[in-house]
Amino acid sequence: MFIVGELINSSRKPIKAAADAKDSEEIQKIARDQHDHGADYIDVNAGVYVGKEAEYMQWLIQTVQEGVDAPCCIDSPDPKVVEAAIKVHKGTPMVNSISLEKARYDALLPVVANTDIKVIALCMSDKGMPETKDDRVAIAEGLINSLVKNNVAIENIYVDPLVQPISTKDDYGIEFLNAIEAIMNGFPGVHTICGLSNISYGLPERKLVNQTFAVMAIAKKLDGAIINPLDKRMMANITAAETLIGKDEFCSNYLTAYREGHLKL
Amino acid sequence: MFIVGELINSSRKPIKAAADAKDSEEIQKIARDQHDHGADYIDVNAGVYVGKEAEYMQWLIQTVQEGVDAPCCIDSPDPKVVEAAIKVHKGTPMVNSISLEKARYDALLPVVANTDIKVIALCMSDKGMPETKDDRVAIAEGLINSLVKNNVAIENIYVDPLVQPISTKDDYGIEFLNAIEAIMNGFPGVHTICGLSNISYGLPERKLVNQTFAVMAIAKKLDGAIINPLDKRMMANITAAETLIGKDEFCSNYLTAYREGHLKL
Repeated sequence: MFIVGELINSSRKPIKAAADAKDSEEIQKIARDQHDHGADYIDVNAGVYVGKEAEYMQWLIQTVQEGVDAPCCIDSPDPKVVEAAIKVHKGTPMVNSISLEKARYDALLPVVANTDIKVIALCMSDKGMPETKDDRVAIAEGLINSLVKNNVAIENIYVDPLVQPISTKDDYGIEFLNAIEAIMNGFPGVHTICGLSNISYGLPERKLVNQTFAVMAIAKKLDGAIINPLDKRMMANITAAETLIGKDEFCSNYLTAYREGHLKL
Repeated sequence: MFIVGELINSSRKPIKAAADAKDSEEIQKIARDQHDHGADYIDVNAGVYVGKEAEYMQWLIQTVQEGVDAPCCIDSPDPKVVEAAIKVHKGTPMVNSISLEKARYDALLPVVANTDIKVIALCMSDKGMPETKDDRVAIAEGLINSLVKNNVAIENIYVDPLVQPISTKDDYGIEFLNAIEAIMNGFPGVHTICGLSNISYGLPERKLVNQTFAVMAIAKKLDGAIINPLDKRMMANITAAETLIGKDEFCSNYLTAYREGHLKL
């Protein structure tokens, strides 16, 4: 499982406070904690700093990478912010995200074309948010085909079929899950990834819903997630689910996680 | 989700002790607890009483049904024990299980043919235990076709694809999960059910594995389980998973479970 740690997001109060105060140590501590708990990439979002997003994004990325030897996932819908972030990023970044919205697509495509940047392809278009599995697959197909044509390796494409709250429509869960399966089966080599927490918007006991949905998505072949790696139950669920789906030879990851105390809940 | 409560099993020490002592109150308490926590059927197994299984099975069923208004799942591979149990059972029982092993099949078929008894069709044959999805689907197809030919309604057939321990082979999980999906898609109207706990045999933190596997199986359309309904996390996972797969209009079961305190973990 490819894990992107979601905590360095300026919409979260402690991150906003640390960024306001230019508190490098606090940002680095949170980045390090996530990396130590299994995050492959550290998501960085400076979206609350309207007008100054690029400047704060650069500071956050530099701060994170001074504190921990990990790449970042540059989380912004604004192509100019993404470009500014790439300039200061060490190693191969991930971009979150390109979509099929024309303005966003046209501006971001040249940034990722002919590179080995990992790119999240969000299933959104100028027609709005997708409702059904077929809506999602159609957008994914458009994004994958044009990215591949522009020399982005399919292994560097992470399709995000876009999670919508189950509290607003009963079939938003199953349509999403079926989209994951259709995309993974239909485009060999591609990855899927998503932020899960939208699914539980409006419901009580949101962690239970998110943790359960992650496991269901793994059963449908999801192989990436943007989550809080400090959520012990979430990480234990993912470890167990990957073992159960046959991705863990001799259960060795499961047994290692057990020995290291990660499965004691 | 169709829930069979698994606790009244004579291989469990407290049940053996209560049955040895003919302690009706203890048996009835455990049956009632399971029913109160969502068991649709109460599994009854007297397998440790070799030579006296029928006698103990009858006593257990009568005892359970004097204490709680619920039907039983008659859990024995021995057709004579099943027949004896049916004689004393009130209402419509479930039989656990028929299989494609010739002796068992030939003896049990006349018991369930032309009745409205619910029957678990275990994917086992004289060739032994199934390994792959295709092994399981082939046995399921044989069982479903012959049961339907003998006037068992497809809605009364619960296929158990047979869970085997993931610790013995990496792909036992995924082969099972894919079998669930293939059977549910291939035979509309049929149900699937299984005891889950075999999956975690030989691993530490077995509850985590069982709870995770249940959610994955629901993502693949499992609609029945033989479990411990007093396992709060298991039941909460099932509630959340059914909501997420679109089987819970307006999330009303989820919200009811929340209000009743079942999701507080």
